[in-house]
Amino acid sequence: MAAAAINLQDKLGRFAEHWSPRVIAEMNDYQFKLVKIQGEFVWHSHADTDEVFIVVDGALELQFRDRTVPLAQGELCVVPKGVEHRPVAAQECAVMLVEPRGVVNTGAAGGAYTAPNDVWV
Amino acid sequence: MAAAAINLQDKLGRFAEHWSPRVIAEMNDYQFKLVKIQGEFVWHSHADTDEVFIVVDGALELQFRDRTVPLAQGELCVVPKGVEHRPVAAQECAVMLVEPRGVVNTGAAGGAYTAPNDVWV
Repeated sequence: MAAAAINLQDKLGRFAEHWSPRVIAEMNDYQFKLVKIQGEFVWHSHADTDEVFIVVDGALELQFRDRTVPLAQGELCVVPKGVEHRPVAAQECAVMLVEPRGVVNTGAAGGAYTAPNDVWV
Repeated sequence: MAAAAINLQDKLGRFAEHWSPRVIAEMNDYQFKLVKIQGEFVWHSHADTDEVFIVVDGALELQFRDRTVPLAQGELCVVPKGVEHRPVAAQECAVMLVEPRGVVNTGAAGGAYTAPNDVWV
């Protein structure tokens, strides 16, 4: 695929669902995904990989069992492999995730928030 | 290392040099780097990896041998593995690069623009 500009706001305008990541780009075997979140997600972890949260719009709290990391637009956070975490956002927040292809949003926790994987926008 | 918020503008305020990437985070064996650019870089490619450019401030042109991709704040572009490219910015522009640890900024081209690798800010 020829290199092209990918506009984050354009992509965000193409879907409305919360907690349902959309792939916008691939780099080697990694994916860049946009997700809109609001409310409290489920506690989960990813056994095999770190995961990066980059805040595109709004703000969220990234809760860990021992601490809470507030994140605002223009900030990022690396969630280490195997560490339980839970994103929480009082208002709608748009996040770009960077992680290997195949990572499921709820990790091994499963449940109602588990979204289809590898959905592009 | 415990997860913490990394603020892009805070990190950008900590260095001034152009064409000298600074690592701000690691995810598995990948690095997130900030780089300030202005002027014309050298034509180069990375034989072993794709490379992602995310524009944080300003705008640049990502030149390829057969086309030019203009990129503005809030846009990203994946440069495919092995494809020659050259970033050009009329005004200062801040970019976040995502690529595997160990990638040299000038690829195999070398020359005066080759920056030390793995420098954190």
